[in-house]
Amino acid sequence: MNNFTYSIPTKIHFGKGQISHLSELSESGNKVLLCYGGGSIKKAGIYDEAVKILKEEDMEIFELSGIAPNPKIESVREGVKLCKENSIDMVLAIGGGSVIDCAKVVAAGACYDGDPWDLVITPRWIKKALPIYSVLTLSATGSEMDKFAVISDMSKNEKWGTASDHMKPKMSILDPEYTYSVSKKQTAAGTADIISHICENYFTNVKNADVQARFAEGLLKNCFKYGPVALEEPDNYDARANLMWTASMAINGMIQYGAEVAWCVHPMEHELSAFYDITHGEGLAILTPHWMEFALNDDTAYKFADYARNVWDVVNDDDMAAAKEGIAYTREYFKKMGLPQTLTDVGIDKEYFDIMAQKAADGCKGSFVPLSKEDIVSIYEAAL
Amino acid sequence: MNNFTYSIPTKIHFGKGQISHLSELSESGNKVLLCYGGGSIKKAGIYDEAVKILKEEDMEIFELSGIAPNPKIESVREGVKLCKENSIDMVLAIGGGSVIDCAKVVAAGACYDGDPWDLVITPRWIKKALPIYSVLTLSATGSEMDKFAVISDMSKNEKWGTASDHMKPKMSILDPEYTYSVSKKQTAAGTADIISHICENYFTNVKNADVQARFAEGLLKNCFKYGPVALEEPDNYDARANLMWTASMAINGMIQYGAEVAWCVHPMEHELSAFYDITHGEGLAILTPHWMEFALNDDTAYKFADYARNVWDVVNDDDMAAAKEGIAYTREYFKKMGLPQTLTDVGIDKEYFDIMAQKAADGCKGSFVPLSKEDIVSIYEAAL
Repeated sequence: MNNFTYSIPTKIHFGKGQISHLSELSESGNKVLLCYGGGSIKKAGIYDEAVKILKEEDMEIFELSGIAPNPKIESVREGVKLCKENSIDMVLAIGGGSVIDCAKVVAAGACYDGDPWDLVITPRWIKKALPIYSVLTLSATGSEMDKFAVISDMSKNEKWGTASDHMKPKMSILDPEYTYSVSKKQTAAGTADIISHICENYFTNVKNADVQARFAEGLLKNCFKYGPVALEEPDNYDARANLMWTASMAINGMIQYGAEVAWCVHPMEHELSAFYDITHGEGLAILTPHWMEFALNDDTAYKFADYARNVWDVVNDDDMAAAKEGIAYTREYFKKMGLPQTLTDVGIDKEYFDIMAQKAADGCKGSFVPLSKEDIVSIYEAAL
Repeated sequence: MNNFTYSIPTKIHFGKGQISHLSELSESGNKVLLCYGGGSIKKAGIYDEAVKILKEEDMEIFELSGIAPNPKIESVREGVKLCKENSIDMVLAIGGGSVIDCAKVVAAGACYDGDPWDLVITPRWIKKALPIYSVLTLSATGSEMDKFAVISDMSKNEKWGTASDHMKPKMSILDPEYTYSVSKKQTAAGTADIISHICENYFTNVKNADVQARFAEGLLKNCFKYGPVALEEPDNYDARANLMWTASMAINGMIQYGAEVAWCVHPMEHELSAFYDITHGEGLAILTPHWMEFALNDDTAYKFADYARNVWDVVNDDDMAAAKEGIAYTREYFKKMGLPQTLTDVGIDKEYFDIMAQKAADGCKGSFVPLSKEDIVSIYEAAL
């Protein structure tokens, strides 16, 4: 196990009816920037309920709406402008990871003099942020409890992750009922995102970080167990609750501290959505089994065998054979979840493979298995 | 899964050489009460190193030493007096759970007008505490990352746990190397304590809290894997590291939130150490298999079967048979760790069974399987 510093200061109110805790926002001042996407939070009644609670606390509400999936830097700039012009005290994101990611960079940008894109490119320039709160409506990115945000500039085909301890939310509300209305497509894609976060941390070269490895395996089991239940019964509380809490635990540091490794499937996928604006989780579901097949060799078989035995209950004493079974189950699972199986399925062809692979290779130095530009092209090709 | 509020604000610096982070104490002021037990931290050089770092930060150091296992209220009173007389800014505990527990109640008592025993008996009267820091030297109680403290008043044969969010340490330093010198007896007892914390949370009637259950199983696996390694090779870093991090995770709320249940083996053991001042972990190791046998019935077999299959890899489709195998493995494990097997082994006879059982029964209302005074007497008798 490596040295690490653990710090997860976000308070989480988890469960039914926890939105009442929005009253705690008054601790941070009285001017709030409410960030959201389209109209779904209005349709679901969450918007009205939140506004009611905030008004009972005499808070002044400003709004940044229309935040898109793969959130764009233009939304961030708009939010920063609102914060600066109105001396906003805090941001409240109501939505999924895209809305929360956007709100985080708005909160950091509000405390920064230059263009907020600088903070996406150079995370260490984030020295401060307004207090960040969230109400989660989609289980996927884990943004509600972590330090990360991913922002795109489509004019440059660029999509980058940034990170700062200052962007960890102060408090998040996780009510699994808010995810009952999430579509099958988004539920499946969200679960693929969670699985990828866990795998990115789990497949590490750090030996004997067993607390982290056993936790990761437990989280993967939850995804494989409850993903199909949530598709079949969208209002199954325990399925939604377990997926929601698993999503937060997958990326808040818990399974990463002491076992750090560079991520690789995410950088490969970020290029796909930067160039084609596809659903992030779908891109991950397509790439993950191909990455696993590429990464499996005599040196790594032990780790894939652990995965197969501890997550999929594979009984096979031969590491390589067990590993292959585990990968086959993974592929089968994504198929069962109705996720696309190939890049062709989502309208991607070879045109940009070279440039995407080069950028991805730059972004995944130090990953579990080293990946050159050529390696990544071969993974993209296998996924066609 | 039940509703819950997650809040684990303690920052942890984990690993080799992390004591250098003691310089962060200067954020909380410049007068520190250094709390420790006997001379072991001096022999190990930790005392000198800590004092050196604190002096480099120009801090004024006051000392509360001689804190005993099963820490006594007299030590707490002495520490509170020192805090009040010298306007102490913060407390720093260097030691195991007993030292940290004592320091926590000192920190709370320093902000309270009456006798600190009040805060042991009535936790809700803890409204404030001085900032608490710790350097851990024994993996067991998890006090370094939780809100609990257990204090004894031997003049009354009383040992009670108290708890408050205000007593969660601000920062703790966990260097596994500091536990290399822990004796076999204390290593074994500490591991039994960790196992008991996990079991107290794991055996719950709350259904489908799977994140919590899978995490608990992973932590139990670590104890069963690394406990014997730490006994055989006291300076095996990964064994000490996994036990240390497992101890913190066992009781910081992670596996309890959303699956709350009243504890029962701890209340039964607290009476043993309140009356006989035995080593807490040894009392737990004696009682745990007997509690398991008592609690196993047709309604609970499914849960003990989960335990057997997911922790001990028992392959048996019959729940009751699998459960019994799991319990047998548990008993065998404690024996292998060199822990006492019976109450007689630690000098306890029937004399106080009635009064101890009555007090324990009062303390474990709402546990996984209801326990009357008579039930507890029968468990004590089985353990004779």
